[in-house]
Amino acid sequence: MARGLGRICKGFQRLGSLSSIQTQLRQPSTSVSVRGTTLIRTMVALPTLFSSKPRDFSLPNSSWGSEMMQLYEHYNSQCEVETEGGEKQEGPWRRLPSYNRLLKYATGGVHLSKIIQSKARLFTRNIRDPGAAFEYVLFVNSEEQKCVCVFQAGHLLEGPPGHVHGGAIATMIDTVTGTHATILSGPVMTANLNINYRSPIPLGSTVLLESSLDKKEGRKTFISCKVTSSDGSKLHTETTALFLSINFSHLLLGE
Amino acid sequence: MARGLGRICKGFQRLGSLSSIQTQLRQPSTSVSVRGTTLIRTMVALPTLFSSKPRDFSLPNSSWGSEMMQLYEHYNSQCEVETEGGEKQEGPWRRLPSYNRLLKYATGGVHLSKIIQSKARLFTRNIRDPGAAFEYVLFVNSEEQKCVCVFQAGHLLEGPPGHVHGGAIATMIDTVTGTHATILSGPVMTANLNINYRSPIPLGSTVLLESSLDKKEGRKTFISCKVTSSDGSKLHTETTALFLSINFSHLLLGE
Repeated sequence: MARGLGRICKGFQRLGSLSSIQTQLRQPSTSVSVRGTTLIRTMVALPTLFSSKPRDFSLPNSSWGSEMMQLYEHYNSQCEVETEGGEKQEGPWRRLPSYNRLLKYATGGVHLSKIIQSKARLFTRNIRDPGAAFEYVLFVNSEEQKCVCVFQAGHLLEGPPGHVHGGAIATMIDTVTGTHATILSGPVMTANLNINYRSPIPLGSTVLLESSLDKKEGRKTFISCKVTSSDGSKLHTETTALFLSINFSHLLLGE
Repeated sequence: MARGLGRICKGFQRLGSLSSIQTQLRQPSTSVSVRGTTLIRTMVALPTLFSSKPRDFSLPNSSWGSEMMQLYEHYNSQCEVETEGGEKQEGPWRRLPSYNRLLKYATGGVHLSKIIQSKARLFTRNIRDPGAAFEYVLFVNSEEQKCVCVFQAGHLLEGPPGHVHGGAIATMIDTVTGTHATILSGPVMTANLNINYRSPIPLGSTVLLESSLDKKEGRKTFISCKVTSSDGSKLHTETTALFLSINFSHLLLGE
């Protein structure tokens, strides 16, 4: 374990999803610190260098069903609330944008150029056909230290006939808990996922993933995550996840 | 848990991959039993009704690198061995074929017609571009109750920059252990996956998954699985998995 962790800390991190990182980088108050503050400015500025705006996969598309849309609107409506005086202000929830490249818009050193393949795509966003695979959007509630994800499972995620593959469910759990841990603790790496599968998820259905912080101990962040039907009545999986904090700078700057 | 299991047993099973099921159905000595033996004949005969032969994804393609090919040939050469008299006979290992539809060639009742969407594809085989995502082949050693999988991780499986997504690794672990459990115990469903991530897997690399039976207790099958570098020198993950035996006939015949 010690050797493995040594390797992990040397040149690596568990990002969870770009959304969490981008969110952090746009909020310089978080703990990400790479060579002072240069990286933050670089990361935020770089998208403007590209001719086309990257697609934000967390926004609704025509494949989203009514359940997906209802849950999206439920949380999205709480991202900005109106005060009694009619002014708008930040609400308890925040939607996290989501792209299919982790570092397309990041600064890169010699090391980065080597390890990032030009064709690489984020696993959960590698199919562009709307509705075919993972359709999801994450919202975070910093005050309650919670994260939710509305997930509509497409027909390309089949495991048991007509139902979602256990690995696709694990993928969403890793994505949500990893993103949540990154928001809470900065750069982390998945160390353990302990998933109990309670009932299968039919293909095409919309489920809700709810992630909450259990505790933080030194470099360790413990997260719990439940997957339920969209109305919360059916429990699909229960998970505990452990993440280890690592040094972000090693990865990004090729040190 | 009890409620969840009840639902699972009612209309469902964890297949792992078509390969394991097909292998079982071609070997009537296994424990799969559905309305006597009718299903076995039906399942084997049905592929001939289709005009084109389905693609077997477990066979080498141009994207397979040298490590993948070497490991494939290592195990494949032990699937058929030559006796002292020069005759060929079955070896200790057996390659499992792999398709991108679980039940395309299976018999189906009313229930099946409803739950199987025409466009559904097995999660691990949903991208046809060779080398882009999951390239893998499974071999089983019945005598030693072991299963190995040679897995080459493509550029569409990215999680942390330049490395394989934790969910993609979990997907392969679920696939291999699920297939192994199905071979050992007949139809099963994943009940638990407990994955310890020790060191990250670079995109494009070839790794070896080795699955072994820990014990069987009633309906429970306990499997262990290690993911290592292709030469076995680096440990990437360690997993324990629990599978529960379920009734195959409910799913296939829509009862």
